[in-house]
Amino acid sequence: MKRKSLLYEGKAKKLFQTNQENVLLVEYLDQATALNGLKKDAVVGKGQMNNQITAILFEKITEKGIANHFIKKISKTEQLVQAVTMLPLEIVVRNIAAGSFSKRLDVTEGTALPFAIIEFYYKEDRLDDPIINEDHIKVLEIASDVEIREIKNLALQINQVLKELFAMIAIDLVDFKIEVGRTTEGKLLLADEISPDTCRLWDKETNAHLDKDVYRRDLGDLISVYREVLQRLENKGESSCI
Amino acid sequence: MKRKSLLYEGKAKKLFQTNQENVLLVEYLDQATALNGLKKDAVVGKGQMNNQITAILFEKITEKGIANHFIKKISKTEQLVQAVTMLPLEIVVRNIAAGSFSKRLDVTEGTALPFAIIEFYYKEDRLDDPIINEDHIKVLEIASDVEIREIKNLALQINQVLKELFAMIAIDLVDFKIEVGRTTEGKLLLADEISPDTCRLWDKETNAHLDKDVYRRDLGDLISVYREVLQRLENKGESSCI
Repeated sequence: MKRKSLLYEGKAKKLFQTNQENVLLVEYLDQATALNGLKKDAVVGKGQMNNQITAILFEKITEKGIANHFIKKISKTEQLVQAVTMLPLEIVVRNIAAGSFSKRLDVTEGTALPFAIIEFYYKEDRLDDPIINEDHIKVLEIASDVEIREIKNLALQINQVLKELFAMIAIDLVDFKIEVGRTTEGKLLLADEISPDTCRLWDKETNAHLDKDVYRRDLGDLISVYREVLQRLENKGESSCI
Repeated sequence: MKRKSLLYEGKAKKLFQTNQENVLLVEYLDQATALNGLKKDAVVGKGQMNNQITAILFEKITEKGIANHFIKKISKTEQLVQAVTMLPLEIVVRNIAAGSFSKRLDVTEGTALPFAIIEFYYKEDRLDDPIINEDHIKVLEIASDVEIREIKNLALQINQVLKELFAMIAIDLVDFKIEVGRTTEGKLLLADEISPDTCRLWDKETNAHLDKDVYRRDLGDLISVYREVLQRLENKGESSCI
């Protein structure tokens, strides 16, 4: 599979066309950003970590029969995915209060939520990704009523799979962000990445942050915590037999 | 009916207990505020206008069989209402893009929306009344699933009544905010006021603002546009016969 023209360069990934129709190549970059790009640093090794973690998580999601764009990892920093048209939507699922949720609604970080809640954000940098509701999604013609229901189901299914997986490696899945895309046939697929860049992961014992908050909040070395998450995921077969 | 102790003083109203159980007295004040209280002015005559306009609109809503707290107007600036426990929720219905909706989502002011959309705001001054979704309403224990559905129905019914009423007096109902309260028996009632303080009203011919935006945006004399709305409402019997 050959890289062809660059389609898109995001904050932590590049997306290339390939010589196969409807197959794209994602390259994960050694770059960390926060605060909508205001904070930005080169972090050697991050691309590898996120490519590997995303691959493991999407394989798990595929195993569970959840429709997604992942095809396969092809190198340390690259993976192949199905081409889709991304919806300008960030879908956030929260199990435990943290981050903007805690701040906006004054709920102490760490408060367990009585059920998994879903939030939608309009992915539009120049508007600072505002939080929106389902009426807004329809008025902005991002998705139909039926699709919104489908996206919510998808998000809750993925939450179930990831929560169980992370619980096996002594990690609480606090919250995470996903994005979805639409195939040319109009089918919705989970797309983008799932990694410590897009999840809040807390060690079950110590509550230590094993995610991008380490970078956002200057709590320590990003790479060592990402490596920790990857190692736990890779060893989970063993640890779950203990 | 006698005023007894002051229960609550808001930005433009005072609420008193009366000698009758479950009946409160609302006094509309000659005060205008905007920007969550940052802008504040005394405006002679405003209390009268809003008391009268709210009374006319609630009478219309009562006529249509929609559950609400209004009992009767008892003086130029006072009315009696049923006592309820207010939900900390502002419910906004929008027919035409304007204000914060236009700003947050970059939709040109004046764009007709394809359907009436509903937004919820958590009424909490110290958090700056953040916009919230239905999951937040449940997690914050403001209302149950069934109650949220009821509130949305109530909001859309009120929109229908008000849109028709204002259309008869050549005014477009752009958007409006309502609040609801719960009786001791757990019944939800439309409460608070409905006036040019809480609605965006545009003249159908000229698109002139006939509401608090005149004050918010320094577009002219607030009292003369509030008087204009009141006069059109009072004369609508005649004008609708033309």
